[in-house]
Amino acid sequence: MIIDGRKIARKILEEIKEKLQKSGRSLRLAAVLVGENQELKKFIELKKKAAEKIGIEFRTYEFPEDITNNKLRRELNKISKVKTTHGVIIELPLPEHLNTQSLLNTIPEEKDVDVLSEKSQGKFFTNRSKILPPAVEAMKQIFEEYKIDLKGPDAKGIEDPRFANYALRRANRDKTAAVFGYGLLVGKLVSHWLVNQGATVSIITEYTKEPEKISREADMIISGVGKSNLITENMVKEGAVVIDFGRDVDFKNVSKKAGLITPPVGGVGPIVVAAVLKNLVELSSSRKY
Amino acid sequence: MIIDGRKIARKILEEIKEKLQKSGRSLRLAAVLVGENQELKKFIELKKKAAEKIGIEFRTYEFPEDITNNKLRRELNKISKVKTTHGVIIELPLPEHLNTQSLLNTIPEEKDVDVLSEKSQGKFFTNRSKILPPAVEAMKQIFEEYKIDLKGPDAKGIEDPRFANYALRRANRDKTAAVFGYGLLVGKLVSHWLVNQGATVSIITEYTKEPEKISREADMIISGVGKSNLITENMVKEGAVVIDFGRDVDFKNVSKKAGLITPPVGGVGPIVVAAVLKNLVELSSSRKY
Repeated sequence: MIIDGRKIARKILEEIKEKLQKSGRSLRLAAVLVGENQELKKFIELKKKAAEKIGIEFRTYEFPEDITNNKLRRELNKISKVKTTHGVIIELPLPEHLNTQSLLNTIPEEKDVDVLSEKSQGKFFTNRSKILPPAVEAMKQIFEEYKIDLKGPDAKGIEDPRFANYALRRANRDKTAAVFGYGLLVGKLVSHWLVNQGATVSIITEYTKEPEKISREADMIISGVGKSNLITENMVKEGAVVIDFGRDVDFKNVSKKAGLITPPVGGVGPIVVAAVLKNLVELSSSRKY
Repeated sequence: MIIDGRKIARKILEEIKEKLQKSGRSLRLAAVLVGENQELKKFIELKKKAAEKIGIEFRTYEFPEDITNNKLRRELNKISKVKTTHGVIIELPLPEHLNTQSLLNTIPEEKDVDVLSEKSQGKFFTNRSKILPPAVEAMKQIFEEYKIDLKGPDAKGIEDPRFANYALRRANRDKTAAVFGYGLLVGKLVSHWLVNQGATVSIITEYTKEPEKISREADMIISGVGKSNLITENMVKEGAVVIDFGRDVDFKNVSKKAGLITPPVGGVGPIVVAAVLKNLVELSSSRKY
């Protein structure tokens, strides 16, 4: 089955639109774009369109490719300080001469809708964040929509005496997940969340010798590398769940084999956009202005 | 071969002793113990002994088992504020009624030798921490001492066209690691570090149905569960590296098969203690008082 990302996104957007209307508040999201990256511009357009559709103001700040780190940091501080701006996103990747993490750290926690500053990540990795990073939220929404239960009971393993204590506490709930890539936006965050949900996670990076050996056994594949056709049919188990954040999957062939799969268009993209706006509403709902 | 943890610890302690003597500064480490846990008392004693041996003052603060979260938080704030205390550790686990992470968060970053507050973990997970969590540092020291090279060149995989871009950048350096447990002190932190070093990491938790299927293939096993004889001979590959933080390994039998293994006594324990003191010296060396 092909995952209908647009349908899930619509549902999220309707929910937050309603929440917004009830609160009677007007929100603004600021997006920062450095350089002339056409793909990033397209992403910003999609976010802008979704935001405006539900009555959220969207403002784009553009800076030249060769801006210095110091200059950009100062600009980001200014943007973050605007009281009528409730969320700030920096479109990634930034040009290579910039220190991405130090710039992400300028965004105060209460406006960090992408959950990418050091502080926000500290909260996320200690399981104390009230919002989830958009890729994680998107995955969670897909699991909910298609009732993929990482926590489903499964008798196997309960008899294993080594895990007796654990097994008594909760039913065995293992699903194996192969995560491709360990980047800032997807792999690192998704891995942590999946482990905490009870999945058995293997992380495959560019250094992994035999990725197919791991992925072929996995109940689900989550990918965030950004390399076309990295994941081919022979690397996927019959019936597996395939969630492709990086456009890494040979969709035409893998879709014949997967039990559930995100398409390259109308897949995770719209859900991630909706998740960003959901985070904006969540974060601002605990603020005064 | 059996890993000589005491030897590695001695080396670290000698280095920091020298560094301390050069600086002419006197340092103090504070340890917080809640309740009457004999095992934790023993750990504190080991830290105290190692600290005093190299001229670091060690102070233990003990609180009753039934102390409230608020009361303990206030006490921790007081302890952390003492200017002549350069590092604070909270012995874990705390009694179940306490909110461990919120209490760990009282320790300011510049005194957080265990790298466990939300802020310190944010730094660690964004690869911006100047010190490593003690378990990670211990593992790193073992790898250095025994020349276990996660970065070793390996021709395999370089020809794989899917990884061509990556492969050109660096030689293939994959080692597979099975990490048992995803706890606060070991699994979560160790997994992140290993992935960043180029290892292919699989995380096994209490929900994993067939841990042996993963661990039997792994070049190294890192364990931090705290469950005796969880890891038995049939779960380990011939020649594997086995690092046991949780006393989880059936040492008698596994040691016959492993290429390199930490013993239950004189293994990781002394190295972790030395790593805590190393962190104290590192953190305080960038401070004025």
